[in-house]
Amino acid sequence: MSNLFLRTLREDPSDAEVMSHKLLVRAGYIRRVSPGIYTWLPLGLKVLNKIEQIVREEMNAIDGQEVLFPALLPREPFEATGRWSEYGPELFTLQDRKRNDYLLAPTHEEMFTLLVKDMYSSYKELPVLLYQIQTKYRDEARPRAGLIRGREFVMKDAYSFDLDDAGLDSSYARVREAYQRIFTRLGLPFVIVKAFAGPMGGSKSEEFLFPVQIGEDTFVSAPSGYAANTEAVTTPIPPDVDFSAEPAPRVITTPHAKSIEDLVKVLNAVAPREDRSWEAGDTLKNVVVVATKPDGTRELLVIGLPGDRDVDMKRVEAALSPAEVEMALPEDLAQHPELVAGYIGPQVLGPQKRGHILKDGEKDSSGAIRYLLDTHIARGSAWVTGANELEKHDAHLVYGRDFEADGRIEAAQVREGDDAPDGSGHLSIERGIEIGHIFQLGRKYAGALDLKVLDQNGKSRVVTMGSYGIGVSRVLAALAEYNHDDAGLMWPAVVAPADVQVIAVGKGTQLDIAAHVAQHLENMGFDVLLDDRPKVSAGVKFADYELIGVPYAVVVGRGATDGVVEVRSRRDASSVQCALDDVSDVLASLRGE
Amino acid sequence: MSNLFLRTLREDPSDAEVMSHKLLVRAGYIRRVSPGIYTWLPLGLKVLNKIEQIVREEMNAIDGQEVLFPALLPREPFEATGRWSEYGPELFTLQDRKRNDYLLAPTHEEMFTLLVKDMYSSYKELPVLLYQIQTKYRDEARPRAGLIRGREFVMKDAYSFDLDDAGLDSSYARVREAYQRIFTRLGLPFVIVKAFAGPMGGSKSEEFLFPVQIGEDTFVSAPSGYAANTEAVTTPIPPDVDFSAEPAPRVITTPHAKSIEDLVKVLNAVAPREDRSWEAGDTLKNVVVVATKPDGTRELLVIGLPGDRDVDMKRVEAALSPAEVEMALPEDLAQHPELVAGYIGPQVLGPQKRGHILKDGEKDSSGAIRYLLDTHIARGSAWVTGANELEKHDAHLVYGRDFEADGRIEAAQVREGDDAPDGSGHLSIERGIEIGHIFQLGRKYAGALDLKVLDQNGKSRVVTMGSYGIGVSRVLAALAEYNHDDAGLMWPAVVAPADVQVIAVGKGTQLDIAAHVAQHLENMGFDVLLDDRPKVSAGVKFADYELIGVPYAVVVGRGATDGVVEVRSRRDASSVQCALDDVSDVLASLRGE
Repeated sequence: MSNLFLRTLREDPSDAEVMSHKLLVRAGYIRRVSPGIYTWLPLGLKVLNKIEQIVREEMNAIDGQEVLFPALLPREPFEATGRWSEYGPELFTLQDRKRNDYLLAPTHEEMFTLLVKDMYSSYKELPVLLYQIQTKYRDEARPRAGLIRGREFVMKDAYSFDLDDAGLDSSYARVREAYQRIFTRLGLPFVIVKAFAGPMGGSKSEEFLFPVQIGEDTFVSAPSGYAANTEAVTTPIPPDVDFSAEPAPRVITTPHAKSIEDLVKVLNAVAPREDRSWEAGDTLKNVVVVATKPDGTRELLVIGLPGDRDVDMKRVEAALSPAEVEMALPEDLAQHPELVAGYIGPQVLGPQKRGHILKDGEKDSSGAIRYLLDTHIARGSAWVTGANELEKHDAHLVYGRDFEADGRIEAAQVREGDDAPDGSGHLSIERGIEIGHIFQLGRKYAGALDLKVLDQNGKSRVVTMGSYGIGVSRVLAALAEYNHDDAGLMWPAVVAPADVQVIAVGKGTQLDIAAHVAQHLENMGFDVLLDDRPKVSAGVKFADYELIGVPYAVVVGRGATDGVVEVRSRRDASSVQCALDDVSDVLASLRGE
Repeated sequence: MSNLFLRTLREDPSDAEVMSHKLLVRAGYIRRVSPGIYTWLPLGLKVLNKIEQIVREEMNAIDGQEVLFPALLPREPFEATGRWSEYGPELFTLQDRKRNDYLLAPTHEEMFTLLVKDMYSSYKELPVLLYQIQTKYRDEARPRAGLIRGREFVMKDAYSFDLDDAGLDSSYARVREAYQRIFTRLGLPFVIVKAFAGPMGGSKSEEFLFPVQIGEDTFVSAPSGYAANTEAVTTPIPPDVDFSAEPAPRVITTPHAKSIEDLVKVLNAVAPREDRSWEAGDTLKNVVVVATKPDGTRELLVIGLPGDRDVDMKRVEAALSPAEVEMALPEDLAQHPELVAGYIGPQVLGPQKRGHILKDGEKDSSGAIRYLLDTHIARGSAWVTGANELEKHDAHLVYGRDFEADGRIEAAQVREGDDAPDGSGHLSIERGIEIGHIFQLGRKYAGALDLKVLDQNGKSRVVTMGSYGIGVSRVLAALAEYNHDDAGLMWPAVVAPADVQVIAVGKGTQLDIAAHVAQHLENMGFDVLLDDRPKVSAGVKFADYELIGVPYAVVVGRGATDGVVEVRSRRDASSVQCALDDVSDVLASLRGE
């Protein structure tokens, strides 16, 4: 450590919010270059390499073959699959000196597809599973949490190629098991959740999430073991309601009732119900959003959902993918006088205005805004909703009698206690960090790029593919998040930057003995970090040891001249005295060898 | 090999000119994605990793510490050192979604400087030597020869930081020795040549060249051991010539004499010399070039050199760096009626037109074209040169009497047999591929980025730096170039994708025995490539073995049922029969173990 390129910091970096980010910077593992872009310092690179090696071993164990693609890729293949435009602003693009378009790859489906097309032509050569551990690029709108959401990051991406669906199922299952082994070896807890495939396309998809409160991903789980990220949760559409007893709609004057909360108060004051009080769940909230398609066209949409639920923009975006979705701005509303902010109702929207529901692909020339209903709204149910007039609401407005919608959408926030889609009980909600993602792409990429092989009967068939990612640098951050205390990091042995830290406390003799111990341990096969800094206090050395998080320390202090040293364990903060000659045995037994 | 992601090709790729490129593609090591951008296939990645490991070991052995920087870097540090603009069109640049400028790093001087500035503050922490093995980007105008001149490539770059010049000398020497060990371990011949530092700045610089006819770099060597690349060769300016006896200039009509060759013929016909014939070396050739500065401004320049020497554009470009230099186009000449193509002379250029020689930094308002003279032209020497009129030349034009120049330039081609700059004799000329480059940067980057430390006396001092590169992927190509025959590659053992290829010739039993032999050899520590393809002929298997270039093969053929196999050596094409049980011993002895 007297020569190691390291400077530990006592203060948290000002831009760090989560513990992994704070500690990785403070302990000298990484250093920020630009938002979401980091340099790996010597200790960080060691941990990264150890994680990579575990990933590599498990991918090789399922006959994965490692290759390495460039990060700088030409536009054409991404044009062919539509991703050049669909990927949106997260794609870093550039031109070379000849003004040809290039991109920095966020993922490599196209290139692997083209490579297999270039090399293989027969079913006999399938299945094949290829992977790489490579630097990826995504221009995140909000890079955050250090390595957790970066713009340049290390990813292991793998791709399987099979002749048929059964083959894909089998490849998918093998990678899924390899992922379980990888995270188990790393000692990182994980939940496998049903996922929304998003812009990758394809059918089946699951995420590996490390459950942690600071995670960006919200997922639900049910008593049955069902788990899904919220984008993928489907709400069973409730059965139709008999509305024959429902009175005709009537207008209620509702002063100062722009929010749902105020509306409920006003309703109970000016038009009280006989059976019970009005509740938020009786109101139909209409939210105006703007969906921007990859080609840049913007569509204003209104989404209706129960007044007691918030809209979940991530679910809306997933439902409208590949469009990007934002709340409408005042200037968007200004172009539509029929939208009276705070008093919007379906009476002037979509089918009501147009006289019919738009069919798929049908163009609307009436200028009516499309109206989508959240899946919680039962056909035949009655609602209080905006009357499209200032300070007026309509009550007893029945879906299917008094208004219609252009379609359904999963828009409302999923809540703790909601019914599980599989009927197994109530959902609970947790947060996590996505550490792996596996997709059954099917024939989307192979079809677009014309990857075909001859089958057993000599017929040309489009290959079916899977795509499998692990965020390697993100896994490192997740491990740091999972393995720390207030004093610093506590690496699991399999990825620690060293097996043991030998700390010389004192001068002269202690330094010599420490160097001797370190050499002895290295000879015994331990990877040793020797703290031989001559003018650094014991307190600073111990603080650095705890911050850096090497699993064990051998403290060479005053007793060392009598042949006694102390062996500490970082994780349980235990310590034992032992004879100098026994150090390697004691360490081996602590490591469970 | 029945599962290996490999397809060997019998035909050379159409875009390949050099053997390494042809064979690496044909043998399934790399695959082209875009000009100068390649994918590493499984065999290629293995060799690349082995080379990287040797580089890593030798860098670690001189206390180099490995880090890893991002490739995507912000503009600002490169702006501070001037390289954002000076690097020119070879720099890939892009903007992120917020319109901030970024680049894909061609090299990392700025970032290492800033990192050390961020971490260190005292002389006690120096010296430090940091390195990375990382993907680099250069938008080459003419990517060629496969991996030899690529646009995305793997480089080991290292940077030393010292307090003073003596420290830099010592760091430089240590890296220089490490490089010698690296190339020696790789078995790659090399010559260390004095180099021109180019856009990297700094003072002392040497290149490690692998001497080979297809190399892009020309270098010279002298009997003394002096070696330099041609850009770095300095021509001693010849002593002044006494021109007192030289007649006054006179105009000679020279019909059809646009080339030097024609001019000499015409001169000997219309104005024969008494003492001897006119020769090309009696004429002064004037070449018009355009230098484009990093800021985009273009300057038309005329360079005068002896008519018996060609202009060397690489030397001119080095001399005018950081400008890029091209021959002037007809449209450039069209703007200067004083330039009569084929008959240009200094009488209408630079000082002659302007009335004085431009001093450094002086602006010229006369519109006169700057005139630079090659270092071979002695002051006082007399020349035949263009008279700036169609079919007219001036003879007896004396430099210093009849014309002047704005400065000197190293422009003429260096020729076999030229005098060595160190006076040790004649130069011989060879070609090579640059595989390493070491620079004493000095304080250029540390100064620009304000990297200072406190010295022993508490005074703040600018750190002095070195920069050291090895083109790792280019070294792989150089190894392929050096180690092949007509049939394919012949890897040295230290980097071969496998130690031995076990080839099953025949079906059933042979396949079983081959699998058994492969397993046995793996148990003995050999890295084995097993050719177990069931329906592939022996001929194809042998051809693939020779193409792929694994050092040894064990052929399991008919004799195997009697316990006899054949061990082949790829390099010397020898073969021996041996008993199955002796295979590992025979291989070990062939490997010199």
